[in-house]
Amino acid sequence: MSIRIIIAGASGKMGQEAVKLIQRVADFQLVGAVSRSEEGKDVGEVIGIGSLGISFHRSVATVLDEVEADVLIDFTSPECVKDHMELCLHAGVRPVVGTTGLSEEEIDQLQKDFAQKKLGALIIPNFAIGAVLMMVFAAKAAKYLPHVEIIESHHDNKLDAPSGTSLKTAELIAEARKEVKQGHPSEQEVWEGARGAYYSGFRIHSVRLPGLVAHQEVLFGGDGQLLTIRHDSLNRESFMPGVDLSVRKVMNLDHLVYGLEEILDM
Amino acid sequence: MSIRIIIAGASGKMGQEAVKLIQRVADFQLVGAVSRSEEGKDVGEVIGIGSLGISFHRSVATVLDEVEADVLIDFTSPECVKDHMELCLHAGVRPVVGTTGLSEEEIDQLQKDFAQKKLGALIIPNFAIGAVLMMVFAAKAAKYLPHVEIIESHHDNKLDAPSGTSLKTAELIAEARKEVKQGHPSEQEVWEGARGAYYSGFRIHSVRLPGLVAHQEVLFGGDGQLLTIRHDSLNRESFMPGVDLSVRKVMNLDHLVYGLEEILDM
Amino acid sequence: MSIRIIIAGASGKMGQEAVKLIQRVADFQLVGAVSRSEEGKDVGEVIGIGSLGISFHRSVATVLDEVEADVLIDFTSPECVKDHMELCLHAGVRPVVGTTGLSEEEIDQLQKDFAQKKLGALIIPNFAIGAVLMMVFAAKAAKYLPHVEIIESHHDNKLDAPSGTSLKTAELIAEARKEVKQGHPSEQEVWEGARGAYYSGFRIHSVRLPGLVAHQEVLFGGDGQLLTIRHDSLNRESFMPGVDLSVRKVMNLDHLVYGLEEILDM
Amino acid sequence: MSIRIIIAGASGKMGQEAVKLIQRVADFQLVGAVSRSEEGKDVGEVIGIGSLGISFHRSVATVLDEVEADVLIDFTSPECVKDHMELCLHAGVRPVVGTTGLSEEEIDQLQKDFAQKKLGALIIPNFAIGAVLMMVFAAKAAKYLPHVEIIESHHDNKLDAPSGTSLKTAELIAEARKEVKQGHPSEQEVWEGARGAYYSGFRIHSVRLPGLVAHQEVLFGGDGQLLTIRHDSLNRESFMPGVDLSVRKVMNLDHLVYGLEEILDM
Repeated sequence: MSIRIIIAGASGKMGQEAVKLIQRVADFQLVGAVSRSEEGKDVGEVIGIGSLGISFHRSVATVLDEVEADVLIDFTSPECVKDHMELCLHAGVRPVVGTTGLSEEEIDQLQKDFAQKKLGALIIPNFAIGAVLMMVFAAKAAKYLPHVEIIESHHDNKLDAPSGTSLKTAELIAEARKEVKQGHPSEQEVWEGARGAYYSGFRIHSVRLPGLVAHQEVLFGGDGQLLTIRHDSLNRESFMPGVDLSVRKVMNLDHLVYGLEEILDM
Repeated sequence: MSIRIIIAGASGKMGQEAVKLIQRVADFQLVGAVSRSEEGKDVGEVIGIGSLGISFHRSVATVLDEVEADVLIDFTSPECVKDHMELCLHAGVRPVVGTTGLSEEEIDQLQKDFAQKKLGALIIPNFAIGAVLMMVFAAKAAKYLPHVEIIESHHDNKLDAPSGTSLKTAELIAEARKEVKQGHPSEQEVWEGARGAYYSGFRIHSVRLPGLVAHQEVLFGGDGQLLTIRHDSLNRESFMPGVDLSVRKVMNLDHLVYGLEEILDM
Repeated sequence: MSIRIIIAGASGKMGQEAVKLIQRVADFQLVGAVSRSEEGKDVGEVIGIGSLGISFHRSVATVLDEVEADVLIDFTSPECVKDHMELCLHAGVRPVVGTTGLSEEEIDQLQKDFAQKKLGALIIPNFAIGAVLMMVFAAKAAKYLPHVEIIESHHDNKLDAPSGTSLKTAELIAEARKEVKQGHPSEQEVWEGARGAYYSGFRIHSVRLPGLVAHQEVLFGGDGQLLTIRHDSLNRESFMPGVDLSVRKVMNLDHLVYGLEEILDM
Repeated sequence: MSIRIIIAGASGKMGQEAVKLIQRVADFQLVGAVSRSEEGKDVGEVIGIGSLGISFHRSVATVLDEVEADVLIDFTSPECVKDHMELCLHAGVRPVVGTTGLSEEEIDQLQKDFAQKKLGALIIPNFAIGAVLMMVFAAKAAKYLPHVEIIESHHDNKLDAPSGTSLKTAELIAEARKEVKQGHPSEQEVWEGARGAYYSGFRIHSVRLPGLVAHQEVLFGGDGQLLTIRHDSLNRESFMPGVDLSVRKVMNLDHLVYGLEEILDM
């Protein structure tokens, strides 16, 4: 039997990839799509893959009223997410939410609500399964090889350094290992900044060049050995295996789970 | 309180590194060492680190008779290992065995014997903790990103290709993932061998060059992303964190465990 | 003063990128464009960058008749190239040809003709300046570090292995170094193909995975050291710096030159 | 015919490697060796490769008096180098000097003296041929792909960051390219130092970890492509191909040349 799926934010970049994913996967069925700006138009035609016979709804409220579904994938903006999750809760539809921006209190409340109704729900700040595997592995490795540095590399349009993914990785490493003050105690930066950004005893380096997309390398050094975990992300397609996995997993959940790492079988 | 350690095969390459390890670690204490060829000589002087006040014993039997110990680290040859483990069993000393070569039947029998006596024991075919982490991570990643290739690179004195580590990794990957026949179905090798060795749907490539030591890279590809796990091993020192961990873990075991991966906290 | 440029094959993938390049570069001016299938339509509108006020011509003959130009960039098919170059010769317009497929005899004849008329011309089989630099450097390095292996990695839609670029690189290396029979003489492939494709004493390995685009690594090993030259190509934009350089260089030539490597200042 | 070689500083680390090199190479002949501390002892016995029938001389002056030689390889300390080169000049022996520390004025004077006597001489601050190739290639690539970053990685005993090799590479790149201010103009370091050390528009990153030896990667980014040149140095053996080349080249020189890059055939 197919899993019946609604996509909110379906005309956005991630939403469009998700529509294409559903078309590719045999047991996934697109039953609804929301886009305020494209209301009434055929989903497939807007996306450029030919008519799908499904028109965009104006809102999550209307689509949940009119359509029977198992899962709602939500790629809308952070400010709508809480409302959408509550609408799902009432409709008995499992939400898979790809946007962040909920406060800890909001998540706590939602966790209680979904648990009480024994309904599955997922909030996934990062669908990139390869990146999540890198972070999970990095945290595990840091226990046994605690000397670590991170090199993250992005295109030169990126404004912030270090990247969000590297900060998240750094936090997980710091939690997993005992703090080690790395490098030689008398180490000197002849040129300021050479040793990178300092975090909890170790260093993060940010490379920015045209031709790069989004890359990260976590290096673990021990006497006579080096372990390296690297992730290269080229485009939004890389998020789709994580979306696929999330849709399947949420069907078997009876409460709200936060983070792709929590539904991986490690 | 210190852990009292005997090393068998202490004048060999791995044994010497283990002696040095014990000198570095505060709560490890060398109480005995075995080397038939160096019997009676001071361990430290033979190794070149200055007198340690401990002389080589002729055999595991004699050292166990004369010395009180908690753990025996065994780097001798495969044919002695079973006898040494039985001597340990009778003496109530926990063996940590770094040599392979035991048959499945022998291991089964030893497992029964150690379990019955509730004594810890470890057989560790590969002490390189970084390499074992690479293999464990590779098997986990293969579930979610099943398209994989292995590139292993060694110095050009190596006789066999692919390397033992790459074969072990390949086995673990094949067990973890559903079989995928990778590459384009109409793919053609213009030059024979270009696509590497075939194993269970994927490929292994062996690079041999002077200047290389022992390296392996496992690449996982998905749409728009690549996850790479790499291990570089430069020398025998890389085995010592695995020896350290094994000595500590065997103290808390009450049976025989096989493989470093089984005592990692994953 | 601007360089006035005509593009033949301007509605193809490479042609479109070249049109965009000319719009970005201050001293380049698009004065004509050829596309049989799009004759009469506005170039910019067909390409999707807004009207440019220039319509596609039907053929190279007609555009050369009607338009004053300095350079003709040719991305048409191999079978037209010779005719186009002869038309350029008569019109006194310098051709920059990105298609291959000319025989050695044809190239010889064209070389004589352009030399006689003292007109610049370029045939560039590979505009990817990074890839050409990799090949040039690899040939130079092979003289001093003759132990080499090539690893080329592409998406899994690629049909042939090894890649054309790796074969070209291999040829250049073989010409540059004395032949060395690499690897241990008693080396054994436990699994067939592990050591890759053999060429002139060394090995080429072809990796194919989703998530990869077009990558090549040339490794040079010597006692205690390794030199690696790597090129990653993500899309057709990577050809544009080579097109830019070619247009500028052809303006100062008085004969036909073959290959981007010949106009690099090495 | 053999090249007759004297080594000064022959009992030091580099000197010992050079003695071994000469034993391996068919047309090299060790005719003298200098070591004040080991005067009179057999060179081979001190080094641990068995008697060579040659005893250490006390000084360069005495060895040049007593022995006929073609080349003197000098691995002594900077303060003696000038005197040694002048002694060579008078004796008509070609010096190959591996120590730095000469002032520009001293080099100028030596250049005049050697040119006048039409005698070959080499001063080679870095014998690592792979590292020199990396620097030469990096300077050439920077002309065509001017967006660059350097990542240099060393063991965590290293005191200074960035490394000397990376500073030298940075200088060569800055000379070769037009200055480009890289990265986004509004780029922000959320954590200070993330973007590395700034030099002439680009960035240098220094990684320090146990398990590393001496590595450097120069990355060149362009639209849709990346060119990477990497050198890994594991031990002093990596300097020997540069010593070998220098000895052969100095035989055909009639003046003083500075730098290995100047005798490479690029």
